[in-house]
Amino acid sequence: MSKVENVQVKLVARPDGLPKASDFAMERAPLRAAEAGEVVVEVSHVSLDPAMRGWMDDRPSYLPPVKLGETMRATGIGQVIASASPSFEVGEHVTGHLGVQHFAVVPAASLRRVDPSLAPLDVQIGLLSTAGLTAYFGLLDVGKPQRGNTVVISGAAGAVGSVAGQIARIHGCRVVGLAGGPEKKAYLTDELRFDVGIDYKRDDVPARLSESCPDGIDIYFDNVGNPLLDIALKRLAIGARVILCGAVSQYNNSGKVSGPEAYISLIVKRATMQGFIVFDFKQRYPEATRQLAHWWRAGDIHYRADIAEGLGSFHSALLRLFNGENQGKSLIRL
Amino acid sequence: MSKVENVQVKLVARPDGLPKASDFAMERAPLRAAEAGEVVVEVSHVSLDPAMRGWMDDRPSYLPPVKLGETMRATGIGQVIASASPSFEVGEHVTGHLGVQHFAVVPAASLRRVDPSLAPLDVQIGLLSTAGLTAYFGLLDVGKPQRGNTVVISGAAGAVGSVAGQIARIHGCRVVGLAGGPEKKAYLTDELRFDVGIDYKRDDVPARLSESCPDGIDIYFDNVGNPLLDIALKRLAIGARVILCGAVSQYNNSGKVSGPEAYISLIVKRATMQGFIVFDFKQRYPEATRQLAHWWRAGDIHYRADIAEGLGSFHSALLRLFNGENQGKSLIRL
Repeated sequence: MSKVENVQVKLVARPDGLPKASDFAMERAPLRAAEAGEVVVEVSHVSLDPAMRGWMDDRPSYLPPVKLGETMRATGIGQVIASASPSFEVGEHVTGHLGVQHFAVVPAASLRRVDPSLAPLDVQIGLLSTAGLTAYFGLLDVGKPQRGNTVVISGAAGAVGSVAGQIARIHGCRVVGLAGGPEKKAYLTDELRFDVGIDYKRDDVPARLSESCPDGIDIYFDNVGNPLLDIALKRLAIGARVILCGAVSQYNNSGKVSGPEAYISLIVKRATMQGFIVFDFKQRYPEATRQLAHWWRAGDIHYRADIAEGLGSFHSALLRLFNGENQGKSLIRL
Repeated sequence: MSKVENVQVKLVARPDGLPKASDFAMERAPLRAAEAGEVVVEVSHVSLDPAMRGWMDDRPSYLPPVKLGETMRATGIGQVIASASPSFEVGEHVTGHLGVQHFAVVPAASLRRVDPSLAPLDVQIGLLSTAGLTAYFGLLDVGKPQRGNTVVISGAAGAVGSVAGQIARIHGCRVVGLAGGPEKKAYLTDELRFDVGIDYKRDDVPARLSESCPDGIDIYFDNVGNPLLDIALKRLAIGARVILCGAVSQYNNSGKVSGPEAYISLIVKRATMQGFIVFDFKQRYPEATRQLAHWWRAGDIHYRADIAEGLGSFHSALLRLFNGENQGKSLIRL
């Protein structure tokens, strides 16, 4: 093991706004052996998620910040190549916070087994991992959709939004998606079978949203934040649920965050705005992955990945995620 | 009846910012008789509530705007002096939207019976009417307090906040109140028996709040809005509930409302921000008024009214409510 070389992308500077290439450094180091309770994983897929931007800041949050000089945190899938834990055997596929690196030496307790027969790993890293699970628990447990509800999703062509909208459709809701650009807009209705697609860059969003939600919005699944959040808040139905999943428009904002001035709508409409973190639902990941895999195999959920190759593509793939150029779930294949 | 003269305060201009005296006109008119299903009420107490400011704007809300030339809407208590409804007899005390006037001719179905033996009417108009009921359902049904929770209340010396905080104390919570000025601050701890009082005008609110809520805020009962809302959002405990009751700091703001930029804390802390309207709990008003009256008689809830005399005091009493000079529940006694 000691002769194997690891390649790691480390955080070497705290980004101010959009991450720069120089905020990261690719380093080589000999791979250390697993200590008791640890396993060594050869990473095959690295997931790129908007939440990674928050982990780069030196601010307390639901996870500690990545330290300067540390390997950048990321969810991944890989195969166990050495194990000092009774929980995993060599050859098994696992997922967890494997980091942006070729090999991860991690506590077995931090990993979850992946069943490669459920779906290809390119699909599992998105649909059956953080993004898909976030969509599943956010929409179903926080949003509590009812048949006939009008559900509006921002970032609707993204990894989380696309799955959330399709789960809403499966549950008999009318689904309206907001995405940037004509290609994504067409993707929402043609591939994901949403009822309405709105291009927030070119369409008159307030008018299109009022017209497509004549009885108001019952559920707003927010991946993006303002200005779309305020536009949606002004159109809530009575008893609406606003699911706060993310605020990708604000993550690289080094100035003031834009707070939703229309939050007073929550009073008038007796509405709820609720945040959640997918990790809190860990006990129910098996239920959710089985259900998502079932929907995918049945053709009820369409899934698309935006795949970059090799660790060298890390920074450019991250930028594609934040500027909205990615088409579907962002990942790096190693 | 036709010889009786009514005096009414009418809305004659839509206020821009703080209401001006010239936005209202006091008018005299003969009192009309009750038609079938109506009763005539001689108003004895008019309640002044922050929500009245919203009703003066020409904006759709949970109630229609007061029209120009119409009597200003207000909750009141009075005695039935004529009845064309089997529901109420002459001499009974009632409450409802009686308006800022001496006599109200209103549908019997819009009224609720008041039991004068429960408490003096000066107390009932605040504690057993909109303000007390708002505190009761907001804190208990939206906030769901648990013994040992840390509850922070803005506008804590006001009609709603003072009752909400005392109900929290009765339920075994630690209560921290925010109010303006040293007199109100002392009132919070000395009379209302809150654990901590903070003077938001003179104290270092972020420091005092961090210090008095070392494990974070479990429940934030918001009557006020920003900047206090943002300060509180940054100090939420995991699973916190933010009860949106009002935003009195914003009601007279003719410019941009200040939205809570710290709303992203709701994600990190898996917290909920929820609005409500007391009218939705109408079915349970009898339960709540009995309970509040019981607490008041037992000395568990202290209640104070800020009483103005006569309709001529309407505008000045309203201003006292918005500039925070009122001490306790604002009302006009006729």
